[in-house]
Amino acid sequence: MSRFKYNEVYDYIKNEIESNQLSYGARLPSIRNASELFRVSRTTVQNAYFTLAADGYIFSEPQSGYYVSRQGSGNTVKTEAAMPQEAIKFDFTSSSADAESFDFNLWRRYMKNALRQDERLLSYSEAQGEPELREAIAEYIYEKRNVAASPDRIVIGAGVQSLLGILCSLINDRGTVSFPDKSFEQGAALFADYGFEVHYRDKDAGIIYVSPSHMTRWGEVMPNKRRRELVRHSAQTGSLVIEDDYESDFLYNTRPTPSLHALSGGSNVIYLGSFSRLLLPSIRISFMVLTQELADKYRKCLFKYSQTASKAEQLALCSFIRDGHLKAQIRKTRRFYTAKARAFAQLLEKRLENSSIEISENALQIIITAPFNKKAVAFEKNGVSVFIEELKNNKITIVISVASIPEKEFEEAAERLCKALK
Amino acid sequence: MSRFKYNEVYDYIKNEIESNQLSYGARLPSIRNASELFRVSRTTVQNAYFTLAADGYIFSEPQSGYYVSRQGSGNTVKTEAAMPQEAIKFDFTSSSADAESFDFNLWRRYMKNALRQDERLLSYSEAQGEPELREAIAEYIYEKRNVAASPDRIVIGAGVQSLLGILCSLINDRGTVSFPDKSFEQGAALFADYGFEVHYRDKDAGIIYVSPSHMTRWGEVMPNKRRRELVRHSAQTGSLVIEDDYESDFLYNTRPTPSLHALSGGSNVIYLGSFSRLLLPSIRISFMVLTQELADKYRKCLFKYSQTASKAEQLALCSFIRDGHLKAQIRKTRRFYTAKARAFAQLLEKRLENSSIEISENALQIIITAPFNKKAVAFEKNGVSVFIEELKNNKITIVISVASIPEKEFEEAAERLCKALK
Repeated sequence: MSRFKYNEVYDYIKNEIESNQLSYGARLPSIRNASELFRVSRTTVQNAYFTLAADGYIFSEPQSGYYVSRQGSGNTVKTEAAMPQEAIKFDFTSSSADAESFDFNLWRRYMKNALRQDERLLSYSEAQGEPELREAIAEYIYEKRNVAASPDRIVIGAGVQSLLGILCSLINDRGTVSFPDKSFEQGAALFADYGFEVHYRDKDAGIIYVSPSHMTRWGEVMPNKRRRELVRHSAQTGSLVIEDDYESDFLYNTRPTPSLHALSGGSNVIYLGSFSRLLLPSIRISFMVLTQELADKYRKCLFKYSQTASKAEQLALCSFIRDGHLKAQIRKTRRFYTAKARAFAQLLEKRLENSSIEISENALQIIITAPFNKKAVAFEKNGVSVFIEELKNNKITIVISVASIPEKEFEEAAERLCKALK
Repeated sequence: MSRFKYNEVYDYIKNEIESNQLSYGARLPSIRNASELFRVSRTTVQNAYFTLAADGYIFSEPQSGYYVSRQGSGNTVKTEAAMPQEAIKFDFTSSSADAESFDFNLWRRYMKNALRQDERLLSYSEAQGEPELREAIAEYIYEKRNVAASPDRIVIGAGVQSLLGILCSLINDRGTVSFPDKSFEQGAALFADYGFEVHYRDKDAGIIYVSPSHMTRWGEVMPNKRRRELVRHSAQTGSLVIEDDYESDFLYNTRPTPSLHALSGGSNVIYLGSFSRLLLPSIRISFMVLTQELADKYRKCLFKYSQTASKAEQLALCSFIRDGHLKAQIRKTRRFYTAKARAFAQLLEKRLENSSIEISENALQIIITAPFNKKAVAFEKNGVSVFIEELKNNKITIVISVASIPEKEFEEAAERLCKALK
């Protein structure tokens, strides 16, 4: 009977976390309160909490309580029930874009032209992606990242996940994949579903997945020395490196950061890139550069694949790149987000004492380490939403993005955030 | 040495088939000619041909020779080298649409409106698909196919393949999947990549995949009796039925064909549908209706998935459906393609003696059984492209589609096709 009760508590909280009713960083009810709430003994609650902690759902903070240690599944969909009581006015975790960063009228013009190509739109897109877009991408990545690849080694898809699915089917003889940490849950889950063993920081894995331009949520960039080491390691062991060059276009630091693909000569490196962040999150066009060997394998089983990206958007993007707008957009977006991050950091510096405020290397995140009142529950309750990265020594480290917050609301957003922190 | 040679011949022909240099139905060189061509003994050629036949690449036709028995991988991309010598003027295998079947101006208007929703386009699409589109689809399939499902059981994706990938990750405990035949290569390959055992016509499989509205390339529709049997079988054994209701909207026959989903009450049936064929092949929006159990499972691991369909196209399609244009489009397309198939069949009847000309149940295909001059090699050589379905007793059966051939070119197309057949 008690056993059954214990499972009930465990399942209830697990579901709450997974459905985002209990958010990352939220404090769980005390053992006494929970025992009243669930009408079970305190031991039962304690056992359930222990198991939840062992399973990675929560962690304990001595003399404070238990906190949710991971994000639920609701990072994109929030059902009515899972919505926090108070509406989130400022979402510092958002990956949405600022309307001012993008010239909608210009994009609409390109879409309009693409939608006029009646004949083209009457047929399915090529499985590999529209040939002229692959050509435009080949030129672009050669110029920007020194990635040399003919268009027939480039595969286009609706998002990095679609492309990784194709890749998994091509390299399923490699057994293990290593990720740098647990942050790219989606990628790890996909590889696991395809039967790979997922490891972390395992140099002996057959596949090594890295995001050298965005190594951590802190926005760290992989140093040149480590890049060269990784390329050498891969050449020696034959391991395949997947280089997700996520947000490389935003790097504002001046020291050169060659792509792993360029360093390796492209022999053992799959290069992944995406336009969603640069243009509009709603434009789902990503690409991957296969090695010659995998490109040959891909073409041999081409019947297995269909294109997922919208043909109209592919055609529009192709003309957009060819007319030089992508490069202009990168410059503009970079300037724009860098200025926003600096302006917001200044507002925080004025308000937060004993705190360290830094801007990440890629200029997209602000990293705050501040004294923290542990009685505060989840930040979601204060009209702002942030993730707690670390919680120790009475200080927390949080990484925020102000990309989606309009500049005219900065004062209020800073005010609210600081209030939540104090 | 001879062993090496034999492998060379085998690999050479296998590659030719896989890269579509040798097309479906093409006759291989005679054993004598091949022995001269490859400079190997006739026995070596014979052994290579035997193995190719055993591996399913070719089949032998007594007193005639060997023919390619399957399509290569080039069904979507044809490389320069794989292009037939003579340009294909009339592609009777095409799944493209006729420009006249679709009101481009109307669709452009909806896309234009969708592209005006700046705020919406600044964020990623919900992983499951835009909520209002899921609502519109729920209403639509309830009305059209009596499929009752709340929008939160509907998942949207860019093409059926993307959705099957998600499904595979949800039902990977079911071990075996059964397809009715080998025609849906893409689906079979995807399941195999996810570690499923792929069977054909195996009633004991954990998952049974069917396309009741388009059972064969002949366009046969599953009879009501078999539908009920299948539903009963699934209820008894607990097997999961995947109902790909591909082209159900085109069914012009008058007898009612209830969906398996409706017959079963939806308990063990996943319902799949797509808009590509109905609207524009370049619009990649498909949907699946999960069982309640799988929908719960899906939401619990929502973090694993991203939306693949274009957000702008989702928003446009939603308004398009709500304003009643989808129903109008179905009526129009059905009338249009039925009329085209009938008109073309008449042209063939006038020209082909001793032949049977039928229109498939779904009115999209014309089935021709005609006397066949076996000296002719692949049809691709005659400026027309068709697949040979059967080749026996000096007769062939071919299934053609005239969907993508403009009506004003029907006379010439019929002339060329009949010439190629004679």
